[in-house]
Amino acid sequence: MDYKAINLKEKFSKFSDHWFPRVVAEVNGYQFKVAKLKDDFVWHDHKDTDEVFLVVHRSMSIEFGDETVDLNEGEMFVVPKGVKHKPFAQEECHGLFLEPRGVVNTGESGGELKAENNVWI
Amino acid sequence: MDYKAINLKEKFSKFSDHWFPRVVAEVNGYQFKVAKLKDDFVWHDHKDTDEVFLVVHRSMSIEFGDETVDLNEGEMFVVPKGVKHKPFAQEECHGLFLEPRGVVNTGESGGELKAENNVWI
Repeated sequence: MDYKAINLKEKFSKFSDHWFPRVVAEVNGYQFKVAKLKDDFVWHDHKDTDEVFLVVHRSMSIEFGDETVDLNEGEMFVVPKGVKHKPFAQEECHGLFLEPRGVVNTGESGGELKAENNVWI
Repeated sequence: MDYKAINLKEKFSKFSDHWFPRVVAEVNGYQFKVAKLKDDFVWHDHKDTDEVFLVVHRSMSIEFGDETVDLNEGEMFVVPKGVKHKPFAQEECHGLFLEPRGVVNTGESGGELKAENNVWI
């Protein structure tokens, strides 16, 4: 057991790419991931799991067809499983995510923003 | 589906007691809970689940027998299942927690700090 605190700012300082979620902690079969977000992600859903967004720095939005949820620092949102959504950030945003181990960032949509899975930082 | 961001600061503004975890979001069978921490909690463990601590405001410590982990704002820690620990906060700290639905705050230790479960805020 590693008795070291996980410092989110330090984790964010270690990479600069966008939309690539990196694992910082695992709790039971779930993974906390950090990612920097900028501009548009792809429309996608996750058929088998809800997904948590927690904004650590700046702000982002999640589009759902007719509705848009704006998330500022210290705000979170749960996207229910099977619900199509498109994350978006005007300025680079730092986000913390929670998903079961193995979830692919783009769901089944794929594309060039599909990231390698289970990459720890 | 409720398209409203969950604002942690607003949640913390709604109560003043210590060590009483209130649910703010559910993701699959897991619950995010907020609590204000001050002074000593009880030594306890959770036999069946890991437990996540994420410090939102100020700082706290988690004691583990010979080791102590200090957590400041923006830092998190996962206490593995079955590991005895005692949270502590010198000044009132605001924490975000993640546990499976139904987990009791004091584990099997009970006592006067045992809180009612599944209370949403």
